Amino acid sequence: MNDSIGLIGLGSLGLPLAENILAAGHPLTVYNRTPHKAKPLGDKGATVAASASEVAQTCRYVITLLSDDAALKEVTLTDEFARNLGADGIHISMSTIAPQTARQLAEHHARFDARYVAAPIFGRPAAVAAKQAWVCVSGDAEAKEQVKPILSAIVAQGLYDFGDEPSTANVVKLAGNFMIGAAMEAMAEAMTVAEKNGVSRQALIDMFSSTMFASPIYKNYGTMIARQVYDENVGFRLPLGLKDMNLVLQMASEVKAPMPLAQLVQSRLVSALAKGRENWDWTGLAYGASEDAGTHS
Amino acid sequence: MNDSIGLIGLGSLGLPLAENILAAGHPLTVYNRTPHKAKPLGDKGATVAASASEVAQTCRYVITLLSDDAALKEVTLTDEFARNLGADGIHISMSTIAPQTARQLAEHHARFDARYVAAPIFGRPAAVAAKQAWVCVSGDAEAKEQVKPILSAIVAQGLYDFGDEPSTANVVKLAGNFMIGAAMEAMAEAMTVAEKNGVSRQALIDMFSSTMFASPIYKNYGTMIARQVYDENVGFRLPLGLKDMNLVLQMASEVKAPMPLAQLVQSRLVSALAKGRENWDWTGLAYGASEDAGTHS
Repeated sequence: MNDSIGLIGLGSLGLPLAENILAAGHPLTVYNRTPHKAKPLGDKGATVAASASEVAQTCRYVITLLSDDAALKEVTLTDEFARNLGADGIHISMSTIAPQTARQLAEHHARFDARYVAAPIFGRPAAVAAKQAWVCVSGDAEAKEQVKPILSAIVAQGLYDFGDEPSTANVVKLAGNFMIGAAMEAMAEAMTVAEKNGVSRQALIDMFSSTMFASPIYKNYGTMIARQVYDENVGFRLPLGLKDMNLVLQMASEVKAPMPLAQLVQSRLVSALAKGRENWDWTGLAYGASEDAGTHS
Repeated sequence: MNDSIGLIGLGSLGLPLAENILAAGHPLTVYNRTPHKAKPLGDKGATVAASASEVAQTCRYVITLLSDDAALKEVTLTDEFARNLGADGIHISMSTIAPQTARQLAEHHARFDARYVAAPIFGRPAAVAAKQAWVCVSGDAEAKEQVKPILSAIVAQGLYDFGDEPSTANVVKLAGNFMIGAAMEAMAEAMTVAEKNGVSRQALIDMFSSTMFASPIYKNYGTMIARQVYDENVGFRLPLGLKDMNLVLQMASEVKAPMPLAQLVQSRLVSALAKGRENWDWTGLAYGASEDAGTHS
């Protein structure tokens, strides 16, 4: 069972990841709470397990990609899961979760000699499929060294190591999602004021995303925000964006670091959901600036 | 006098620009309100004029790089200046000013058949010296075509044309400075919360400025904000940052486009000046997030 990989959670990131694991030639065991998502992978050669604990029993490496802290704790913060994972086992936790949850899981698993590596992922589904995501890792040093080549082979174009503390990779992940949200709000306000002054939204972002802000976030999200189309190509839904921004503010409150810009981004997400936009991509938070300016309704 | 260039304003951007104009082989006439700054350029072959109107009389192209709208209007919104500039003359206005000021100047000059091209510049002094700035232009189409090769030869690594309306380049410039301020606040909050969670400020920005935010603003300003050193290498002083953010908010108010993030950035600049930081670089607005979190004082 040395190179067998388990994957728990077959959402928009989990599914392409599963395909990559199979393509890389690893034996794969999957588990999803709603079983119908696992079926097509079973047809492609994956083993479909009946529970998370069963995955831990048969796989040395167990990746989790679940939607939130509660779902993750429900399936992995159990004695059975950690015992089945055992002394050789490594839980590779890729969800965006609170740093506190990461610490809790690492301590829990350690009681059964199992190890926990935090490996949250930056990348939308297409980037995951193309193995072009960026992954930050933290946790047990030896476990990390085993995990890194696997992550490189199945998902990451780049790995960033933030040390031995299991929670720090999640801190970085939350800080990064906050910075993306902040960049979206900045682009939204800039495009709105420019548009009302007769400058095309697209021309504005074409210049900035080719010069001072020549980077993936400003290019890709900038084009979506310029077009104001938020219900196509939905890579990361608004409710998940709000969940993450709530985690950012919770973390900020715990360490006593006021984040007024994070609060602004969170309010945009809350407002978008108040308007029934739960199926929009989270770039849709940018629509708030236009609505406030009376240019869209 | 066909290729003679006048330059009014020898501040931190004007001086390196003057050197570039001389190096490109153009006859150069300079004027600065405080004359001692012009002297070294006179020693290098520039003609030192006694007034802005004299510059307009002897040069076909007159560049202005003055600190604010009031200074610009004082020296160029006069009948004498526009009359001296005349039918062949082009005023190349590179300061960051209100769109309304640009319209006013273009209309004024037109009464004397002189033309106005807005060409505000993105670039700190070192970038200007290296001809690596980005310039957005707008205004009279024929005048712009004459001006573009000059700007490419003396300052710009790239030119972006925003049409015939004289004010639009200034709209873009203000939107861009706002986006820089917003990015600095985002980095400041992200680094502060990360630091209080045990993640190095530099490690955080090293990752982000190499991946999702791999762009000049996040790399260069990010390093300054990670180090928290704001009184060395001062390329753009805090009071000028506040002046620009006030122009952003004034423009936003005029067209009725609420910009809550611009207000937050403006408040950071106001607070920094309240604390006596007028000689800091404007990246120093980032210190506010640290102070609010009790990590610096």
